[in-house]
Amino acid sequence: MFIQFVTTGGTIDKIYHDAKSDYEVGDPQVIDLLREAHVTFEYELASPFRKDSLDLTDADRSEIAATVAASKAECVIVTHGTDTMIETAERLRGIPGKVIVLTGSLAPARFKLSDAEFNLGMAIAAVQCLDHGVYIAMNGHVFTAGSVVKNRAKNRFEGIEP
Amino acid sequence: MFIQFVTTGGTIDKIYHDAKSDYEVGDPQVIDLLREAHVTFEYELASPFRKDSLDLTDADRSEIAATVAASKAECVIVTHGTDTMIETAERLRGIPGKVIVLTGSLAPARFKLSDAEFNLGMAIAAVQCLDHGVYIAMNGHVFTAGSVVKNRAKNRFEGIEP
Amino acid sequence: MFIQFVTTGGTIDKIYHDAKSDYEVGDPQVIDLLREAHVTFEYELASPFRKDSLDLTDADRSEIAATVAASKAECVIVTHGTDTMIETAERLRGIPGKVIVLTGSLAPARFKLSDAEFNLGMAIAAVQCLDHGVYIAMNGHVFTAGSVVKNRAKNRFEGIEP
Amino acid sequence: MFIQFVTTGGTIDKIYHDAKSDYEVGDPQVIDLLREAHVTFEYELASPFRKDSLDLTDADRSEIAATVAASKAECVIVTHGTDTMIETAERLRGIPGKVIVLTGSLAPARFKLSDAEFNLGMAIAAVQCLDHGVYIAMNGHVFTAGSVVKNRAKNRFEGIEP
Repeated sequence: MFIQFVTTGGTIDKIYHDAKSDYEVGDPQVIDLLREAHVTFEYELASPFRKDSLDLTDADRSEIAATVAASKAECVIVTHGTDTMIETAERLRGIPGKVIVLTGSLAPARFKLSDAEFNLGMAIAAVQCLDHGVYIAMNGHVFTAGSVVKNRAKNRFEGIEP
Repeated sequence: MFIQFVTTGGTIDKIYHDAKSDYEVGDPQVIDLLREAHVTFEYELASPFRKDSLDLTDADRSEIAATVAASKAECVIVTHGTDTMIETAERLRGIPGKVIVLTGSLAPARFKLSDAEFNLGMAIAAVQCLDHGVYIAMNGHVFTAGSVVKNRAKNRFEGIEP
Repeated sequence: MFIQFVTTGGTIDKIYHDAKSDYEVGDPQVIDLLREAHVTFEYELASPFRKDSLDLTDADRSEIAATVAASKAECVIVTHGTDTMIETAERLRGIPGKVIVLTGSLAPARFKLSDAEFNLGMAIAAVQCLDHGVYIAMNGHVFTAGSVVKNRAKNRFEGIEP
Repeated sequence: MFIQFVTTGGTIDKIYHDAKSDYEVGDPQVIDLLREAHVTFEYELASPFRKDSLDLTDADRSEIAATVAASKAECVIVTHGTDTMIETAERLRGIPGKVIVLTGSLAPARFKLSDAEFNLGMAIAAVQCLDHGVYIAMNGHVFTAGSVVKNRAKNRFEGIEP
């Protein structure tokens, strides 16, 4: 099994710099999380940029899509901020021949209590179990792109009729 | 979505009692892990016993199988010690009409660094994506029961030709 | 032994709200940290406000000083943001008859890796071992107020000749 | 400031080996804890052995005492299992010209929730604030050797009249 990871920033990679009394998007946490999980599959990681997903432009989404499309992998996982994960999922729906799973986290991976490890585990299981298509793994659900919205008031993803 | 959890003990639930200078299997960690992951699905949890999986008897495995079979859920996740997880998976293969995923962890869930959250996330994604059958989610792989062994020397699960 | 805690906010209490994609100062973490440390002394906790220490006004410092002075405790620990901890320490130097130790953390207490537990442990040991006066416990040192500066470039506290 | 650390094992350094389904005393955790705490003092670390403190012999205690006595440091911290920490403290009381603080933890340092960071912080503050002598830093208290017992039933240290 071979998985391509594409990290784009978001809460999962948020770190805190006390010197600036400010949070910012840091190094991709995926590699540390995979080590902690003792995974034995092969993988590569591409990190086209590190952004809060509210700041993503059309050009950024095109870059994500190009990175995914250019990968030799059939299985691709995109880590992403939760605020516009759904928009990026839509943008990726045109890419053929791949299982693409987007995930992220509501709390930074560096927190004692975080959904980052859990969500990454979900994405990795989903990407190897599902047919070609685009999916979002969040809140314990594997949603199909086009059938999910983010409920901002409740800060969670919910399924809808497509 | 509704998931039945069946917890049986194992490293994932190991705790440490300094008063006795000894580790033992404690309360099921699944509920805390699900809360940390902000899952939104419905679930029930059955905990027939708490054992190191090396101590499981035939009667214990029959009890696990009976608990799984009696559940109203189509999706069942069994948390289990890793040493005899494969034997229990074999025992559960006769149960019809269900997706059954076994998982556990190599480090206790209470550790700062543990594969517990990741593995539980994998199991939850797998149980909702796969067809009826019995599976093991460990080391970043979703294995089909009958096609996996535990490599004790390397302390990891590996796929084999069935 | 009886200790008065006065919490004022700062990085030690920073939490992250994904819904707003923003960090803010949350509930005082001291109580959770004391529970985790299995402390057996008596204590009370006052939380006059929760602020980033860069936002503290003269009125805020007067309120901290009044809270400390009004406490029945001889031993007082003030948790505080690191950016202006030294200014607040100066403001507290006039209070007689008390051992006052200020501490905080460079990484939020909710992080997997944080100096919060360590620094709180330092403050609690210092407050029971020292003579009346005002002290800062950070970076593994117990500094006397008036003999310490924050090196912002290196994000650490350093001793100076008073 | 210069501190000599002497690590001897105990719960603070306990790790878990799933391959053997067993816990054992692992590498000294002190260095990782000091890094996490961003300490800026100079230190050295000696690790004469790694043992559960119930297994310590008279020869082991003599080795600890010799290591402490031989150190060039005035400030010495001994990390130690809690079960016989008091006996070792007694053994060290004859060493002149040093501040010696023993500490350890009730939960392993590798646990998400552990008193290890807190207790190490206490020991480091105590060792720089106190006069020559032997002390135990546990449960939020800095006890003087000879005035403390371990209450095994409650798994905590308590002060007594010397």
